[in-house]
Amino acid sequence: DFISAMDEVHPAFGVSEEELLQVIQNGIIHFNDTINETLRSGKLLVEQVRTSTRTPLVSVLLYGPPGAGKTALGAQIAQSSEFPFIKLISPDDMVGFGELQKVTAINKVFADSYKSPLSVVVVDNVERLIDWTPLGARFSNAVLQALLVLVARRPPKGHRLLVIVTTSLREVLTDVGFADVFDTELRIEPVSDLPSLEAVVREVNLFESQDELRRAMRMLREARLGEDGGRVLQIGIKKLLSTVEMARQEPESVAERLLSALIGLGM
Amino acid sequence: DFISAMDEVHPAFGVSEEELLQVIQNGIIHFNDTINETLRSGKLLVEQVRTSTRTPLVSVLLYGPPGAGKTALGAQIAQSSEFPFIKLISPDDMVGFGELQKVTAINKVFADSYKSPLSVVVVDNVERLIDWTPLGARFSNAVLQALLVLVARRPPKGHRLLVIVTTSLREVLTDVGFADVFDTELRIEPVSDLPSLEAVVREVNLFESQDELRRAMRMLREARLGEDGGRVLQIGIKKLLSTVEMARQEPESVAERLLSALIGLGM
Amino acid sequence: DFISAMDEVHPAFGVSEEELLQVIQNGIIHFNDTINETLRSGKLLVEQVRTSTRTPLVSVLLYGPPGAGKTALGAQIAQSSEFPFIKLISPDDMVGFGELQKVTAINKVFADSYKSPLSVVVVDNVERLIDWTPLGARFSNAVLQALLVLVARRPPKGHRLLVIVTTSLREVLTDVGFADVFDTELRIEPVSDLPSLEAVVREVNLFESQDELRRAMRMLREARLGEDGGRVLQIGIKKLLSTVEMARQEPESVAERLLSALIGLGM
Amino acid sequence: DFISAMDEVHPAFGVSEEELLQVIQNGIIHFNDTINETLRSGKLLVEQVRTSTRTPLVSVLLYGPPGAGKTALGAQIAQSSEFPFIKLISPDDMVGFGELQKVTAINKVFADSYKSPLSVVVVDNVERLIDWTPLGARFSNAVLQALLVLVARRPPKGHRLLVIVTTSLREVLTDVGFADVFDTELRIEPVSDLPSLEAVVREVNLFESQDELRRAMRMLREARLGEDGGRVLQIGIKKLLSTVEMARQEPESVAERLLSALIGLGM
Amino acid sequence: DFISAMDEVHPAFGVSEEELLQVIQNGIIHFNDTINETLRSGKLLVEQVRTSTRTPLVSVLLYGPPGAGKTALGAQIAQSSEFPFIKLISPDDMVGFGELQKVTAINKVFADSYKSPLSVVVVDNVERLIDWTPLGARFSNAVLQALLVLVARRPPKGHRLLVIVTTSLREVLTDVGFADVFDTELRIEPVSDLPSLEAVVREVNLFESQDELRRAMRMLREARLGEDGGRVLQIGIKKLLSTVEMARQEPESVAERLLSALIGLGM
Amino acid sequence: DFISAMDEVHPAFGVSEEELLQVIQNGIIHFNDTINETLRSGKLLVEQVRTSTRTPLVSVLLYGPPGAGKTALGAQIAQSSEFPFIKLISPDDMVGFGELQKVTAINKVFADSYKSPLSVVVVDNVERLIDWTPLGARFSNAVLQALLVLVARRPPKGHRLLVIVTTSLREVLTDVGFADVFDTELRIEPVSDLPSLEAVVREVNLFESQDELRRAMRMLREARLGEDGGRVLQIGIKKLLSTVEMARQEPESVAERLLSALIGLGM
Ligand SMILES: Nc1ncnc2c1ncn2[C@@H]1O[C@H](COP(=O)(O)OP(=O)(O)OP(=O)(O)O)[C@@H](O)[C@H]1O
Ligand SMILES: Nc1ncnc2c1ncn2[C@@H]1O[C@H](COP(=O)(O)OP(=O)(O)OP(=O)(O)O)[C@@H](O)[C@H]1O
Ligand SMILES: Nc1ncnc2c1ncn2[C@@H]1O[C@H](COP(=O)(O)OP(=O)(O)OP(=O)(O)O)[C@@H](O)[C@H]1O
Ligand SMILES: Nc1ncnc2c1ncn2[C@@H]1O[C@H](COP(=O)(O)OP(=O)(O)OP(=O)(O)O)[C@@H](O)[C@H]1O
Ligand SMILES: Nc1ncnc2c1ncn2[C@@H]1O[C@H](COP(=O)(O)OP(=O)(O)OP(=O)(O)O)[C@@H](O)[C@H]1O
Ligand SMILES: Nc1ncnc2c1ncn2[C@@H]1O[C@H](COP(=O)(O)OP(=O)(O)OP(=O)(O)O)[C@@H](O)[C@H]1O
Ligand SMILES: [Mg+2]
Ligand SMILES: [Mg+2]
Ligand SMILES: [Mg+2]
Ligand SMILES: [Mg+2]
Ligand SMILES: [Mg+2]
Ligand SMILES: [Mg+2]
Repeated sequence: DFISAMDEVHPAFGVSEEELLQVIQNGIIHFNDTINETLRSGKLLVEQVRTSTRTPLVSVLLYGPPGAGKTALGAQIAQSSEFPFIKLISPDDMVGFGELQKVTAINKVFADSYKSPLSVVVVDNVERLIDWTPLGARFSNAVLQALLVLVARRPPKGHRLLVIVTTSLREVLTDVGFADVFDTELRIEPVSDLPSLEAVVREVNLFESQDELRRAMRMLREARLGEDGGRVLQIGIKKLLSTVEMARQEPESVAERLLSALIGLGM
Repeated sequence: DFISAMDEVHPAFGVSEEELLQVIQNGIIHFNDTINETLRSGKLLVEQVRTSTRTPLVSVLLYGPPGAGKTALGAQIAQSSEFPFIKLISPDDMVGFGELQKVTAINKVFADSYKSPLSVVVVDNVERLIDWTPLGARFSNAVLQALLVLVARRPPKGHRLLVIVTTSLREVLTDVGFADVFDTELRIEPVSDLPSLEAVVREVNLFESQDELRRAMRMLREARLGEDGGRVLQIGIKKLLSTVEMARQEPESVAERLLSALIGLGM
Repeated sequence: DFISAMDEVHPAFGVSEEELLQVIQNGIIHFNDTINETLRSGKLLVEQVRTSTRTPLVSVLLYGPPGAGKTALGAQIAQSSEFPFIKLISPDDMVGFGELQKVTAINKVFADSYKSPLSVVVVDNVERLIDWTPLGARFSNAVLQALLVLVARRPPKGHRLLVIVTTSLREVLTDVGFADVFDTELRIEPVSDLPSLEAVVREVNLFESQDELRRAMRMLREARLGEDGGRVLQIGIKKLLSTVEMARQEPESVAERLLSALIGLGM
Repeated sequence: DFISAMDEVHPAFGVSEEELLQVIQNGIIHFNDTINETLRSGKLLVEQVRTSTRTPLVSVLLYGPPGAGKTALGAQIAQSSEFPFIKLISPDDMVGFGELQKVTAINKVFADSYKSPLSVVVVDNVERLIDWTPLGARFSNAVLQALLVLVARRPPKGHRLLVIVTTSLREVLTDVGFADVFDTELRIEPVSDLPSLEAVVREVNLFESQDELRRAMRMLREARLGEDGGRVLQIGIKKLLSTVEMARQEPESVAERLLSALIGLGM
Repeated sequence: DFISAMDEVHPAFGVSEEELLQVIQNGIIHFNDTINETLRSGKLLVEQVRTSTRTPLVSVLLYGPPGAGKTALGAQIAQSSEFPFIKLISPDDMVGFGELQKVTAINKVFADSYKSPLSVVVVDNVERLIDWTPLGARFSNAVLQALLVLVARRPPKGHRLLVIVTTSLREVLTDVGFADVFDTELRIEPVSDLPSLEAVVREVNLFESQDELRRAMRMLREARLGEDGGRVLQIGIKKLLSTVEMARQEPESVAERLLSALIGLGM
Repeated sequence: DFISAMDEVHPAFGVSEEELLQVIQNGIIHFNDTINETLRSGKLLVEQVRTSTRTPLVSVLLYGPPGAGKTALGAQIAQSSEFPFIKLISPDDMVGFGELQKVTAINKVFADSYKSPLSVVVVDNVERLIDWTPLGARFSNAVLQALLVLVARRPPKGHRLLVIVTTSLREVLTDVGFADVFDTELRIEPVSDLPSLEAVVREVNLFESQDELRRAMRMLREARLGEDGGRVLQIGIKKLLSTVEMARQEPESVAERLLSALIGLGM
């Protein structure tokens, strides 16, 4: 159930392997079927780029709530392509960049990608790249405009490109006119039922014994978490993993901590 | 039904042939009569510029929904003119340009055009050239103002110019005061009925046999796509071609994929 | 009925003769009486500047709908003055100028005018000079403020100046506080009845024979164009001349094209 | 009835005599009693500055409709002071200045004034100095702030200063917080009744004979201009003088032109 | 009743004695008891700074209507402290400064103050320092932010600081988030009853004899100025002193002028 | 009841010990149980960072009303970690910094922290770091965006980081999109009942005798301060300590001063 995909691919040049490793550090936990579907859809897009002569450019938007695993899955799809050029454009590498610097850096990645016959560019966390803040709807129009052009610009003849963009704020992309641009979209779901949750805590060995795990799951079921008509459960896998680690700090009351944290989120 | 117009023209100097080739890469599919009408209207404007002494400048706006084929048709009209100077002004070539750089680049193309006795300038995707975003109605007023002047400025005595401008956002041009400027306008229509759609999929050989094509068209008719009182069909030729290629990836269920994609768009 | 006024004047220095020629390229067609009245009012202002000791500065605003002929008539009045200094300030010559550059250029023209005993400065298309756009009511306040001062600033002792300003957006000038500044105003009317229209098409020989002309006029009358209670006719002479030339491209159906274009405008 | 005050004063240094001459070029016509009252109030303020030990700084705002004569009367009061330092700060001299340049220039005048034991500074047309436009309420806050401080800042010990500020937009000054700053205010009235109007046209010899004048005044009375319940008459002396000169251009119908111009304004 | 406090203190270094002298040029008139109370509260704060080990920083806001005497009283409290470092930060010294220059200058005063064991910094007229204008609520956020930090930043160990801030616009300070910052506040009152007014005119010898004074006061009483249910009297001491000097210019009608000026203000 | 925690830790390098000493100058008074709870929660987070392999980054928001002791408690938690790298990012050290300078300085601290295996970064008073002002909701988006990225960016492999952020304006952080970022939050409470208040005044020896203390507490109880249905008591420990010192200045009426100050705040 756990893919350390990194071992399977040996990309040639221009691939930022370490960056990609970094964002899938905690691996991909297959907590339910949507994970596999997403990865399969990604593979089809990769094939379309590899084979279709009429679509040298394919672009896809990965969207979903904060921490749902968009970056990790985007990176995973990119890696699995085994294309010679794979590159992650991330706000993490652009702290303190001015608008122009950002545009130049982003533009360069795309220009570089055009040199490879087959490329994947992952544009991660696009709301942060455009410096979006909801208060006053401020953002960098310069970066937005550059991305609007770059995501839709065909590579030169004989070259092909898959562009993967991730965002937690799909509505914002619509508002700024950045939603029509994509060829297709994939929604990444948070953990929202107890079986998925159980798959996660089991995978990371939160409980020391099967008994403790069973006891904990019973407690969560009794709290009617993630049940129709019960308490809402909607937690990104990233936040869930962090909540799990916090609970782990108090070995004497792991289940209680987990439950109260999950209930706290629902409020 | 397929024009590889590129072979027919041999423009002299200042013509950016490769650029033009690039944007009509997939050719022009004559999926219905409006295509021919548009090309004929374009030819008349070319003739007016070539012959009338009172109108050394003629400007036309090509507008229509995203992906309707505005750029390709604009380029096609320009190429068919066989004028010695033909040039495409495109946001694709201006990623990361500041306002001033953009204005300078645009201005230079017009200034160059004035040196030729007969010229066509295609100003492509004008909303992107002015860095338009609907959120907050932001745009570059400097670029807008330059275009407002350039599109209406007569070439010097003895020189003639056809200006073709394309946009997906005609209402925005009205809002910013850029609609009165044109001598005339041409609307580019999306694919919106099944016969047009059939012409396209036939042209690109989406189905391996006539039988499969027939079966697929029956399925679409049953879904009442593009029918009065049925499901809306409104898809730009560009998006349609991309949808077709995506469907092609799954040979076992091409028709189903096509149908579900087209229905998805209608929502 | 056609004045090629250019032949009658021989201005001395500082006069930008070519510029002026350029903007009245198509001459002045006297399609109705208001043309003569406007030119006569212009002459009176010229005389006031020449003779009155108490008004060394006179300013006039020429306003009217787009293409009504404001620039041509302003240039015509300026030329007829035979003043030693005549200069056109036009946005056509300032594409890509920054605010400061514009102000400097404009200021220089006024400063130069002060060196001549008698001067005319035509400030053409003032909404474009101030980079006006209706969306967000954006404009260059720096250029506006400079114009507000310059249009009202008296030339030094012993020098006299006529300032002619043109605009299609008189209400905007009011909104920005630029309407009180002028000593007087002249409204330039569009072509709005059939006799005026007939005068124009006759002048430019649109029809090959008197018969065809008569047939066309009958058709327009039957469409009740420009009639009380009929279809609105409101077309600037510039747009009319362009419409005429477009119609001329299809010799077999000139009248029909003209009619449908004129009706299209009325919508 | 006509003061050519310029002959009476011989200011020592720092006085910009020519500037002042320029703005009172057409002299001061005593068309009614308010003119004398304003000049007397001005004289009292001059005396307060000269004599009171507790108020080394006195500031006064001259306000009134456009063309009411604010600049001329401000200059007149300044000149009559016979103070060794008299200086006019006018937007006419600052076309194209940036904010900082303006502030520096204005600041310098005040700094210079502090070197003289007795000074008058006339800050003319303050709405233009701050680049005010009603559309969007734009203005230069930098210039405003500098003026707010300078108009209220006491000169160094042993020095005294009268600051005269003029404006047509008193409400704007209130809105930007610039109304509380002044020690006192004087309102400058437009010409608003027929006797005042008659005094003006008589002074400038608009009519060639007494008879013509009488006939004209009768005509204006019959039009019930400036009468209670009749037509409004509200015209600044500057605009009136310009209207008069325009009427003078058509000797055969001076009275009619004057009347129709005055009625036109009332609309 | 008149304190020329300047003679009583002999501050050592860093004290800008002349500046302080300048702002209390007209001395402090003890027109009612609130003056003494304010000065006593100031003295207590000075003592707290001098003695308490837990509050090395004390900040106080002096607020009140324009001209109420905030600057003079702030300066007076500062002077009376006899602290080795006393400094006035005033907009008067920063005309034409850019934001950064202002922040640097202000920051430097605080940095200097940290070198003295005991310091007072008077931040005068804070709305002007931040370039506040009510129209559009414009102000310098950079200066505001610097002041927000500086007024609350503790001096280094072993150093103590009293910060006195003055403003006429306390509500604005609240709006910009600058009200919570102060340890305490003191309100400075305008002259608002006839006994206070009498104390002032007596102090400055407005009337030549006791009789005249009595007559004037009777007149003011009859006008029911500053009486409950009568005319409002609310005038800052600064404006009152200026009004008094203006009235003094017309010896024959001092009382009448004073009365009409005071009534004029009430409107 | 008083922790001079500073003596207990001996951090190695990169620790800004003096800065931390400065902000907990007045120590931590354990006026009620929440103090201990907060410190314990802090310790658990420190342990999670030290031990969990899946969460190399943990971030926590300390929020609460002005002066509640957020900075002191944040510094205390940081110090107690005994991590080799501890650093305080404070607006106090960035007066006059431009946006870019701020971002660079902040970025550098994080970059430095990545060099240590275990680090704590305290980002103090985040609303001031982003130059927040409620009027017009102005703030530095550049600094905000940098913090959004930095607080969520994982340190490189093998390095671990605890980020502690403090704010008085939690709602503002939500508005600007900065609330979802944290792994957890801790609320710091003001003093809001009389027992807590008594613990404080006792700790700082405000009253010279037990009797006086008792008398004062009785007075406060009678005023029904901090009682259900009585007067609100909500005062940050910082403001309370300042109020106490002010009261101490008037030894004859300490209790009365304290009471009236506390009541004044409740209004
Ligand atoms: N099924 C899964 N899908 C995605 N990530 C997973 C999955 N299982 C485990 N993970 C781990 O969960 C984390 C997901 O974090 P990631 O940064 O990808 O989320 P995100 O949606 O991009 O977050 P953000 O909204 O903050 O950008 C990663 O550490 C990843 O290794
Ligand atoms: N009849 C047609 N008209 C236009 N383009 C066609 C037609 N048939 C096929 N095509 C192909 O369809 C594509 C149309 O894309 P094009 O970029 O011109 O659309 P567009 O309207 O400019 O899109 P956008 O709104 O994104 O600017 C081109 O690849 C072109 O070769
Ligand atoms: N009676 C006329 N008055 C003005 N122009 C005329 C007339 N007759 C013919 N013309 C021609 O019509 C054209 C008028 O165009 P012009 O640029 O002056 O219009 P405009 O009102 O300034 O347009 P715009 O609103 O675009 O600035 C010129 O080419 C001129 O030679
Ligand atoms: N009684 C008068 N008062 C003022 N100006 C007079 C008077 N009589 C004649 N004049 C003349 O009238 C003109 C007044 O113009 P001035 O520029 O002073 O008006 P203004 O109110 O400053 O105008 P604006 O509102 O445009 O600034 C001057 O030329 C002046 O010589
Ligand atoms: N009791 C008093 N309190 C304060 N100032 C007094 C008093 N008596 C006389 N004065 C004089 O009155 C003037 C007060 O002016 P000051 O500039 O201090 O007022 P302000 O409130 O700071 O004005 P502004 O609102 O314009 O800043 C000074 O000249 C001062 O010498
Ligand atoms: N229990 C306590 N918790 C926190 N601070 C305490 C406590 N007891 C005493 N103090 C002292 O109270 C002061 C609290 O001030 P601090 O600057 O930490 O508050 P703050 O909430 O950060 O204020 P601000 O909202 O202005 O940033 C410090 O001087 C600290 O030494
Ligand atoms: Mg992500
Ligand atoms: Mg296009
Ligand atoms: Mg024109
Ligand atoms: Mg004036
Ligand atoms: Mg003051
Ligand atoms: Mg703090």
